[in-house]
Amino acid sequence: MLNRRAQAHCESIVDRAAELRVEVTQVGPTRVIDLGINAVGGLEAGRRMAEVSMAALGDVSLAVSPLTGGPAVMVRTDAPLAACMASQYAGWEVKGEGYFAMGSGPMRAAAAREELFDHIGFCETADVAVGLLETDTMPPEAVCTDIAAKSGVDSGSLTLLVAPTNSQAGNVQVVARSIETTLHKLHELGFDLSRIDSGWGIAPLPPVAGDVLSGIGRTNDAILYGGHVVLFVRGDQESIDQLGPRTPSSASSDHGRPFRELFAAYDHDFYKIDKRLFSPAVVELVNIDTGANRRYGEFAPDVLDKSFGR
Amino acid sequence: MLNRRAQAHCESIVDRAAELRVEVTQVGPTRVIDLGINAVGGLEAGRRMAEVSMAALGDVSLAVSPLTGGPAVMVRTDAPLAACMASQYAGWEVKGEGYFAMGSGPMRAAAAREELFDHIGFCETADVAVGLLETDTMPPEAVCTDIAAKSGVDSGSLTLLVAPTNSQAGNVQVVARSIETTLHKLHELGFDLSRIDSGWGIAPLPPVAGDVLSGIGRTNDAILYGGHVVLFVRGDQESIDQLGPRTPSSASSDHGRPFRELFAAYDHDFYKIDKRLFSPAVVELVNIDTGANRRYGEFAPDVLDKSFGR
Amino acid sequence: MLNRRAQAHCESIVDRAAELRVEVTQVGPTRVIDLGINAVGGLEAGRRMAEVSMAALGDVSLAVSPLTGGPAVMVRTDAPLAACMASQYAGWEVKGEGYFAMGSGPMRAAAAREELFDHIGFCETADVAVGLLETDTMPPEAVCTDIAAKSGVDSGSLTLLVAPTNSQAGNVQVVARSIETTLHKLHELGFDLSRIDSGWGIAPLPPVAGDVLSGIGRTNDAILYGGHVVLFVRGDQESIDQLGPRTPSSASSDHGRPFRELFAAYDHDFYKIDKRLFSPAVVELVNIDTGANRRYGEFAPDVLDKSFGR
Repeated sequence: MLNRRAQAHCESIVDRAAELRVEVTQVGPTRVIDLGINAVGGLEAGRRMAEVSMAALGDVSLAVSPLTGGPAVMVRTDAPLAACMASQYAGWEVKGEGYFAMGSGPMRAAAAREELFDHIGFCETADVAVGLLETDTMPPEAVCTDIAAKSGVDSGSLTLLVAPTNSQAGNVQVVARSIETTLHKLHELGFDLSRIDSGWGIAPLPPVAGDVLSGIGRTNDAILYGGHVVLFVRGDQESIDQLGPRTPSSASSDHGRPFRELFAAYDHDFYKIDKRLFSPAVVELVNIDTGANRRYGEFAPDVLDKSFGR
Repeated sequence: MLNRRAQAHCESIVDRAAELRVEVTQVGPTRVIDLGINAVGGLEAGRRMAEVSMAALGDVSLAVSPLTGGPAVMVRTDAPLAACMASQYAGWEVKGEGYFAMGSGPMRAAAAREELFDHIGFCETADVAVGLLETDTMPPEAVCTDIAAKSGVDSGSLTLLVAPTNSQAGNVQVVARSIETTLHKLHELGFDLSRIDSGWGIAPLPPVAGDVLSGIGRTNDAILYGGHVVLFVRGDQESIDQLGPRTPSSASSDHGRPFRELFAAYDHDFYKIDKRLFSPAVVELVNIDTGANRRYGEFAPDVLDKSFGR
Repeated sequence: MLNRRAQAHCESIVDRAAELRVEVTQVGPTRVIDLGINAVGGLEAGRRMAEVSMAALGDVSLAVSPLTGGPAVMVRTDAPLAACMASQYAGWEVKGEGYFAMGSGPMRAAAAREELFDHIGFCETADVAVGLLETDTMPPEAVCTDIAAKSGVDSGSLTLLVAPTNSQAGNVQVVARSIETTLHKLHELGFDLSRIDSGWGIAPLPPVAGDVLSGIGRTNDAILYGGHVVLFVRGDQESIDQLGPRTPSSASSDHGRPFRELFAAYDHDFYKIDKRLFSPAVVELVNIDTGANRRYGEFAPDVLDKSFGR
């Protein structure tokens, strides 16, 4: 019950709303927790938001980056498929009335509208739904109603957590997606994700950006050029040896330039950027069945410096 | 309610007194928790003491130092002004009957006797008060009575936590002051602290010293020469660019020598040491409004080695 | 009451059995928690298993290795003797009906059959007992009955946690033994362990091995060639200066080769390997009484790479 778990975690946020500097509001009957649009939010708000995005099936912590010596976001999970693919992945393009936001969280498993769920399962019939919207605008009531309907719950049983990438909370929760990014890349490569038992990941926390696009750029770059993920996998080694080298971001011809620079070079058309770029800098695949241990990719601290404005 | 929060955190210490190896005593009607004078204390006692000093508005953890590879104290807060300035800063010189100790913790906000509070606010009328004393001597009853009176509470509603710098708990709780030190320095430079939304800091945990003065030296040096703080700030960039370079310890002409050596060179007169020295080695100021990101200062691992006796 | 503490920690594992992917079974009247034989287990299962092994008198966390940049197991305790020697040390060779497993955990303090307890104390008469078995086979009922009898409890009051070294949980819980290994080595050298107030340690998390022997090899190598321990000690400096240089693994003539290679070279006879090898790569001894600070040993990342299959 991913949504039930996430909802329980939301209550711990609501209970500490003042301390976390988040605003618990209503948009019609739907509860919308603002962690960074009008609210100040913070590091802890972002940490908890990230855990909600994983349906409370992962551990997110502020740590030290071995790459920069500064703060980093560390994440681990023993339920990678449920936490990262069925919940955390931002696979729902929330639209309506001129509104747009990337949607993530376990409401996706309740809606089960993405093709992804045909492959991974974890669809659920829920009586509550919880989702995250990456946005700098509060969702209109019609959008909330639509999300609730698609998730199969009453609008009053839906909780949405909202923050833009250029807020402190948004910054933390996106950089907590290092494992998720790896799983998604492996899925695209045709790897059977049910073989992945556990994951550990880290990426440097970027300086909060001044605008949404720079925020998307810096948080992506943190993972693409500074992310390090270790997956504990079962099954045949041949598929690992074949797909592994294609897994890290360096497998893409677009590797080597900050996201914002690429985006500009491709006439601000996100879909022209090579999809294979979206993966951590370094990926380690440990085969638990055989003990084989492979490491792919390299960090690119110079690109990070450029992206982070150093 | 800073003192109420700190008091609740104290109860969790008292509940585990045996495990934390602290001694809960009475000095007259005042509760004095000894974490390192006669008590053995330890790392966890120090960690919790540090969180009390921040009125439980920060997270203190034992981490790995990227500088030394050994243990470090990591701290973060989304309430830097309340946690670090109104509580943690050791701004109260506790005196009386030949007794002297540096006082910190939220009792300062209840007493509101320091000029600092005219600038930062956070004064409070409290029915309980909690403070820390950096000392190797149990406070006499008259001192406790005086603190209580100045804090506006009954002596029986005051809790004091005591430990010298050359105890394990004292060692941890002083090194947890990396963010606080930065804020104080910025305040001295005239920076408006209310612009600081959040902070993250780390400093290596020094070897516990053999005497109080060496303890003060090593814990200071840990921050001055090994501390790394990132502040998330709002507002104009001009003031940041102007004051930033003056923020790290390297802005002082006394930079480069261990505290004890300086102290001896200045005839054991603390007040002759350049005040501008007291700041972390590296300070990063991230402007959340613009995304600008500045880094000031350098680590001085050679001075750390000298101070730590390596 | 070490066993009572460990039992309470076990209940928190049982309560989250599904999430931790552990299987709570009965072998006759004895509760056996499988964390890695038939059960999948995971990183969190291993982390909690390690804390149970220390009678919940230590803190075990997943951290970042300053040596590899990848995951590491960090451990600290303010009760090193009780947590590491009376509980965590795998000093009980559990045998019977062709069954063999290394036994650890506080059941050892209830049984008090090892000579070690004559030196360290901490024997206890318990009404419940908790132990860990490092094994890939579920213990037969006769073995459980025998353990219970030797521990002085009913078979129904015994809880055993089982996992092989080549499972995720087993991998974590063995690598959490960096402080324990140091204490045991110091004990062998004749150092009075009651002088040790607290400890901090870290070692890189190896890739889970494909078989039990490789698992023993990699987890040992993680500590021998990548482990870093700091102990906070009291008392005379002379004994430290004398025994310190003999404490790290480099003090052994067998230092420099992975465990598996040594094991093969010694005709697969564990007892032919120099006992002095079993200690962390780097040991720091801080004398709290004097502030003296000594560091012994060196990391051997090349041996780690060989062992970890990089």
